Amino acid sequence: MQLSLTRQGNCPLYRQITNQMREYIRAGAIPVGSRLPTVRELASQYNLTRLTVHTAYAELQSEGLVEAVVGRGTFVAARLPIPTTVQATLDLPAPPPPAWSSQGLLADMMRMTEHPDLLSFAQAIPEATTYPTHELGRSLRSALENPAALSYGSTQGELALREQVAHILLDRGIVTSPELVLITSGAQQAIDLALRALVSPTDVVFVEEPTYVGALELAAQRNQRIIGIPVDASGIKLDALEAACQHYHPRLLYLIPTFHNPTGLSLAAERRQALLRLARTYDFFIFEDDVAGMLAYDDPALPALKALDTEGRVIYGTSFSKMLLPGIRLGMIVAPEAHLLSLLAAKRTSDLFCSPLLQHALADYLHRHHLSAHLQRVRPIYHERRDAILSALQRHMEQCSWTQPAGGFNLWVMLPPQINERDFYLQAIEHGVGFAPGAAFFTQPQARASLRLSFGSHSPTRIEQGVAILGNLLRQQLAEIERLATRTGMTGSLL
Amino acid sequence: MQLSLTRQGNCPLYRQITNQMREYIRAGAIPVGSRLPTVRELASQYNLTRLTVHTAYAELQSEGLVEAVVGRGTFVAARLPIPTTVQATLDLPAPPPPAWSSQGLLADMMRMTEHPDLLSFAQAIPEATTYPTHELGRSLRSALENPAALSYGSTQGELALREQVAHILLDRGIVTSPELVLITSGAQQAIDLALRALVSPTDVVFVEEPTYVGALELAAQRNQRIIGIPVDASGIKLDALEAACQHYHPRLLYLIPTFHNPTGLSLAAERRQALLRLARTYDFFIFEDDVAGMLAYDDPALPALKALDTEGRVIYGTSFSKMLLPGIRLGMIVAPEAHLLSLLAAKRTSDLFCSPLLQHALADYLHRHHLSAHLQRVRPIYHERRDAILSALQRHMEQCSWTQPAGGFNLWVMLPPQINERDFYLQAIEHGVGFAPGAAFFTQPQARASLRLSFGSHSPTRIEQGVAILGNLLRQQLAEIERLATRTGMTGSLL
Repeated sequence: MQLSLTRQGNCPLYRQITNQMREYIRAGAIPVGSRLPTVRELASQYNLTRLTVHTAYAELQSEGLVEAVVGRGTFVAARLPIPTTVQATLDLPAPPPPAWSSQGLLADMMRMTEHPDLLSFAQAIPEATTYPTHELGRSLRSALENPAALSYGSTQGELALREQVAHILLDRGIVTSPELVLITSGAQQAIDLALRALVSPTDVVFVEEPTYVGALELAAQRNQRIIGIPVDASGIKLDALEAACQHYHPRLLYLIPTFHNPTGLSLAAERRQALLRLARTYDFFIFEDDVAGMLAYDDPALPALKALDTEGRVIYGTSFSKMLLPGIRLGMIVAPEAHLLSLLAAKRTSDLFCSPLLQHALADYLHRHHLSAHLQRVRPIYHERRDAILSALQRHMEQCSWTQPAGGFNLWVMLPPQINERDFYLQAIEHGVGFAPGAAFFTQPQARASLRLSFGSHSPTRIEQGVAILGNLLRQQLAEIERLATRTGMTGSLL
Repeated sequence: MQLSLTRQGNCPLYRQITNQMREYIRAGAIPVGSRLPTVRELASQYNLTRLTVHTAYAELQSEGLVEAVVGRGTFVAARLPIPTTVQATLDLPAPPPPAWSSQGLLADMMRMTEHPDLLSFAQAIPEATTYPTHELGRSLRSALENPAALSYGSTQGELALREQVAHILLDRGIVTSPELVLITSGAQQAIDLALRALVSPTDVVFVEEPTYVGALELAAQRNQRIIGIPVDASGIKLDALEAACQHYHPRLLYLIPTFHNPTGLSLAAERRQALLRLARTYDFFIFEDDVAGMLAYDDPALPALKALDTEGRVIYGTSFSKMLLPGIRLGMIVAPEAHLLSLLAAKRTSDLFCSPLLQHALADYLHRHHLSAHLQRVRPIYHERRDAILSALQRHMEQCSWTQPAGGFNLWVMLPPQINERDFYLQAIEHGVGFAPGAAFFTQPQARASLRLSFGSHSPTRIEQGVAILGNLLRQQLAEIERLATRTGMTGSLL
């Protein structure tokens, strides 16, 4: 590496270093993983101050091109970020920083469940009293008598369960066969397997903006290039999607078309066919996450996108966690035939198979037609709670706007523009109420504070209490901002 | 790119092109993914015949440096192979091809379990009649009464189980705390999580040669650079390991030091400390796979390598599949503290958590001290079967050599050099006996045919029957080769 630096002109020395090194790194002339000269070495070689070199290195680091390792030096980053020049000219959303880092937030959300005193709307948990303990106990006893349930299982999943799954998916409009069903450890593993099997780390993956936290964390961990596509009240915006397709050539769109997480809204019927046409035109696959699809309150939900898929573009994934109970940790993929083998290989290398004991128990439970009875029992409960939260929001948080889900148990609230999300979040916890802060669901920072309220596990009375506390807190914060604005004569409205 | 070619000297033109282009590619001067000039362009630019350029490109392609795409041209390969010059001078094994592809073989082995008539030694399965159905049923009933067992679980695993696990690991010499235990979906997921958390795809991973099929398939799926280190009767060869360390800078060594899969042998005591010293000197981590560590026949096995690990270099993984039963699909990692958070993030993105229902049931089972009673019951069974298979090999397959495991239920057989592994494998199945062919366990093709016999699930009588059939087949094949050699006057001994 040879730098050519000049003290003439008005480009500062540190920027000349940054620019030239960036070129070297992008061209591969300084290979990935190699150590840069130390600050001291470079300063002495080119007769520069150490501060100049240090500033240049910090700049490269902030661009994601190099990484500093304490005590070891500065190294060319293993995964170079996408050049930003492309985006700038296209006026498309910039790609997210290489590591989406709500890890602390996820840890917070986990910790919330361990606080018995906290009234938490953070996690999307079903009502525990509906869990079919008795029926499941009987099915487990029956499974224990089956020798196949105790030994090694099939990677694809036990046939008895796959048959039942193919049957219940008819309710989502999906006509499939047990041969195309793959049993997974919940929907999270379904997403992970789809990425492992279909998507290389250099491929671009599209997601809705906002979307499920677990998909974002997975993408960040893979260093996957992800692009968020905005949604409106009818779901993903197809014009924005098409514009992005023209420039990023996505391999996969991760989508929650029915009772979307976090908003609770569904993709409109007229957009579904158009979306599949786009998938064909731009040759990408869709992972359809349908974890809440069975939880429509009144009218049945629209059929799954998979039901419209005539050419194997949709990988369908769901889980029994929301519709039945989380504790059995079982979900599924309905695979396009062309991808079945690579999905099976991904499952095999991930964890070989799911517990056949649980699979046979669940198959027995489903075989006895308990699921439809269970769904008939739980839907009115979530309906009542949805009504309770809408009514409470109306009375206590009229300064906000929110969504009106027709199924599932997630609801999205946009706070007034003056409110700072982190302040509101931390103070709410101090006042005894938890929620999932909006930032967790986006690939990029958002100007407007928002939050997700998951109301599945709380009675109408508790919902009313919790929202009242949030409403009080909101009024206090707005009053304090108003007081400061009046006193100082400033608005702070751009902050 | 500028080539400097001369018609003087005795280096042919095509080789000069190959040599110089190789340098350019390795230096990054022709970036990964970029298109080389067409054969026609380069020939015309340097006044060469097209055949010369074509030969040079074919050479680069066979080295894995470039890839030809029909109709589009020749491109610098996305993943450059490890330079072979290093190996040539060191007499080290060449790196494996990028995709280890025993997928068909794994599918075969899966299919074998579905053939009720086949006497299969292919899969390492415990004796099914030892599965503790009754005790487990009681523990499951108890778990069903625990509301925590039905809802979302902790990513790290239920504390009740982690406490029990920390306790039983004392038997392997491991003193740890529940805070460092992470519950996994079997040992396969433990390996997968360790790679996800600690190893980037460009890192080099060492494995024993031979080693566990599932680790090889996982590495191939990740396109991981893996290097096999040979073993002898005392385990991994430390001189070969050190020589390889000096050139490949491994990030991780995947190791099965106790009742190794597939050989059944254990790493000698005196090599264990020396191995940890090497890990320190060359700064790599060790994943210790200990799935059979609890299954010593007489004398207890050597303590786990983890028991000697004073500086957090060993990630310990095991599973209840061999020591108890596969159907509950639970295993664990004991993590070095520094890697706990990234292992947890890997678990979260993989499948969030393991079924708390099964975890609480297993915790209850362990809490009642059933495991040690179970182990006392099963060890003599596997001991007797090991004796049966040794005796049968002695009587029916004296032309072979084999290992003498002191625990677990895998044994390794080397066939006479005349025998072709695939022929023997397919014919054995035709004769009603299955086994795991040796090729599945190596990163590279082997000259000598070998096989793994897993005898855990077969009675001494069945073992005798199966080995007798293999012995008959072997004699037939040897006789046929002898007959052909006599008739033709050829030996074919190098084939």
